Amino acid sequence: MNLIRYGEKFFDELEIQKIWKNEVSSSVELNQISSASSERIERTVIRGVKDGKAGIYLVDSTKDEDILKGIEKAAMIAKVNDPDPHWPGLPEAQSYRADTLEVPEQKSPEHFVNILSSVLKEVKLKDPKAMVVGGESGGAWLRTEILNSNGVSVEQNDFTSFFVLVMIGRQGAQVTPSIFDIDVSKTHEVDTKRVVDSCIKKIKVANTVKKAELREAPVLMEPFALSELLMFALFPAFNGEREVKGTSVLAGKEGESIMSKKVSIYDDPLNPNAVSHVIADDEGVATRKTSLVEHGVMRGFLWNHYWASIAGRESTGNGLRSFRTGAMSIGAHNMVVAPGTRSLEDIISDMKKGYIVSSYQGAHSSNPDTGDFAVVANPAFVVEDGEIVGSTVFMLSGNVYDIMNNVAEVSKELRSVYMGMLGKGQYPAIKFENLKIAPVSR
Amino acid sequence: MNLIRYGEKFFDELEIQKIWKNEVSSSVELNQISSASSERIERTVIRGVKDGKAGIYLVDSTKDEDILKGIEKAAMIAKVNDPDPHWPGLPEAQSYRADTLEVPEQKSPEHFVNILSSVLKEVKLKDPKAMVVGGESGGAWLRTEILNSNGVSVEQNDFTSFFVLVMIGRQGAQVTPSIFDIDVSKTHEVDTKRVVDSCIKKIKVANTVKKAELREAPVLMEPFALSELLMFALFPAFNGEREVKGTSVLAGKEGESIMSKKVSIYDDPLNPNAVSHVIADDEGVATRKTSLVEHGVMRGFLWNHYWASIAGRESTGNGLRSFRTGAMSIGAHNMVVAPGTRSLEDIISDMKKGYIVSSYQGAHSSNPDTGDFAVVANPAFVVEDGEIVGSTVFMLSGNVYDIMNNVAEVSKELRSVYMGMLGKGQYPAIKFENLKIAPVSR
Repeated sequence: MNLIRYGEKFFDELEIQKIWKNEVSSSVELNQISSASSERIERTVIRGVKDGKAGIYLVDSTKDEDILKGIEKAAMIAKVNDPDPHWPGLPEAQSYRADTLEVPEQKSPEHFVNILSSVLKEVKLKDPKAMVVGGESGGAWLRTEILNSNGVSVEQNDFTSFFVLVMIGRQGAQVTPSIFDIDVSKTHEVDTKRVVDSCIKKIKVANTVKKAELREAPVLMEPFALSELLMFALFPAFNGEREVKGTSVLAGKEGESIMSKKVSIYDDPLNPNAVSHVIADDEGVATRKTSLVEHGVMRGFLWNHYWASIAGRESTGNGLRSFRTGAMSIGAHNMVVAPGTRSLEDIISDMKKGYIVSSYQGAHSSNPDTGDFAVVANPAFVVEDGEIVGSTVFMLSGNVYDIMNNVAEVSKELRSVYMGMLGKGQYPAIKFENLKIAPVSR
Repeated sequence: MNLIRYGEKFFDELEIQKIWKNEVSSSVELNQISSASSERIERTVIRGVKDGKAGIYLVDSTKDEDILKGIEKAAMIAKVNDPDPHWPGLPEAQSYRADTLEVPEQKSPEHFVNILSSVLKEVKLKDPKAMVVGGESGGAWLRTEILNSNGVSVEQNDFTSFFVLVMIGRQGAQVTPSIFDIDVSKTHEVDTKRVVDSCIKKIKVANTVKKAELREAPVLMEPFALSELLMFALFPAFNGEREVKGTSVLAGKEGESIMSKKVSIYDDPLNPNAVSHVIADDEGVATRKTSLVEHGVMRGFLWNHYWASIAGRESTGNGLRSFRTGAMSIGAHNMVVAPGTRSLEDIISDMKKGYIVSSYQGAHSSNPDTGDFAVVANPAFVVEDGEIVGSTVFMLSGNVYDIMNNVAEVSKELRSVYMGMLGKGQYPAIKFENLKIAPVSR
């Protein structure tokens, strides 16, 4: 059945995206396997345009008969809408690089239950006072197909497995703050040992609570903390839609130095470890590596087809579609902050006095228009003479461009982080020179 | 096929909850119908217990064959878990009141597109400068079935239709803050006219921006603003699990006066307008009207079966299950703050100088252990001599018990609010006596 041909009876242009998602996972809560589940989602998003008027319909099926009915519903919506004078047409047919990801076989819930069960035993053995308060092990299989009336036709598969652990330490009636770590992988091999060891190491030191005494000190942000801050305070400024609307402070700054030469940032869906491994974005535009910052110099924005056309630019293949509302936006597939040369261990061992931040609270209330932020670093750790000597909590407020101009060193290790549209990717730890902090009582 | 009988081969006790949910809706964005969608979710949660060890498995199907396999997976999970020494057993068979809700017929997406389309025309006619930035019209049909090995067997149906509008006003280059209103109904009749008129009225006055000059003034919280504050700062203290764990400031206060005599609060799933109209909770315990506060006096907590058993109390039928994780928690079905006697209009017309709050930002970071909160009232409005004369923004911080002791008057009108587990219900507007506020520049 040629769905596009059928849809051309109603529309000048038509796009159909089908999505199949399978997610199998198991969860842990308070040292017990709390549940396991298996979920399969099928969804089709139909977007048709007639005389510049768009209609979008979403249906939870990928069957031809349901899509046919959906096309008629989309046509009904287009009729009641106004024409969009800026409508640039759908993307043209294009060629894609080969889809090199080898999608591993489906696993049963037992597989993920067994991972968690061994982890629980491992934790009990390594630190009987530690408690796994929460966690999840699972895998997500994603298949999409995009067709449009300009000849776009692309199918792709993606797979991500994930392992998350949230632990606390107990000492008498005292408990440590929650310690969190994650591993994300494109195969079924998740590094549970690294995550467990990292959490237990932090719990041990977190039992010693220190007041954050210094008012200005070097601060090392671990990959997850760094991604939280950049996702909310920095990355929105690289969104092409914001450039057009005049709400990006980076508008007109291409070619200018905007941060330390030690920092390069790019979106890299081609990377074999890419969190979203895609050859085409959700409009069927071929994806590519897009440089945003090169040794501190602003290199460009991320674009989808619509906003690129309005700005007279080329789409960078960063069109992302909400499977819930059908709305198109702009987002990274795999945001990478380029690694440095020395190991995290070496960087810490050279710190005389300073702090390490594992995670932030309140990063989401950063101001993306200005880069201003005010966050609570928790858990954070105190470093003295190259040793982590205790845990602490402090407030950090400032401007993301100021601190990104104040980078002392970038670690050579990258960690995969899976958060919202703009945050997913691979991040190093970054040590910043003297940042002003404010202690918080706990 | 007797699923419970089959499960008894693996378990001492077994509970099966099946859920069917249909949601049909349409959305609006920037004065256009942005999409419509139809979604059907089927899910079964299996909870089995063997020798005090629990196993929970979730499957996205309600078919016998899938549930049979799920029972075996739940058994596999129970095996690796530790026994819960406090496990009270599953609820016993019980009788339920009649399910009186008449669930209306399914509607097509066209129905909701047409509602939005007429609303857009109505807005254009009534205020050409107003813009509908977002909104949704839809209906959700929910059917559940709960069975357990103690003889619980109950089926129920629920329906909610909703209509949400977010609007702004434009005056030259100036835009007003977002103005939001909602109508929730147990039939297909949603009051779009009331929502449209309420938004347009607020937009008109919001074009005049005033600085919040008074440092201490009467503050009238509209139903939605009130629900936000109470949901995060007050209601968690009525959760029986928190009473047992010692994190509720209300522990041991039953019978004591905790707030103004003008306030009564109860959970009322029997109310014909109940947001969740259920005869049994998610464990099959019969629901009832539960008084929490009667004329200012603390009357009790909300309980599910597990925490009630530990506390030596009776479940109030407030067990809620997450359809995502299977986890049981405690929540209200239809939280009602009892109405007063005078109309909102009369209360406002008696206000010499004061403020009206439509919505808060930051209510989620309230401290549920103490009742302390710090929120930004936005949009808020300035009242002078009984007239709303402009919009404003201010900060309000304090303690929810202090302000609930400081109630001047409760409106006779209630509005249905649909938020998280604890917030959904029906709320009046409440006028508080002199609250301390801090202006915020916009």
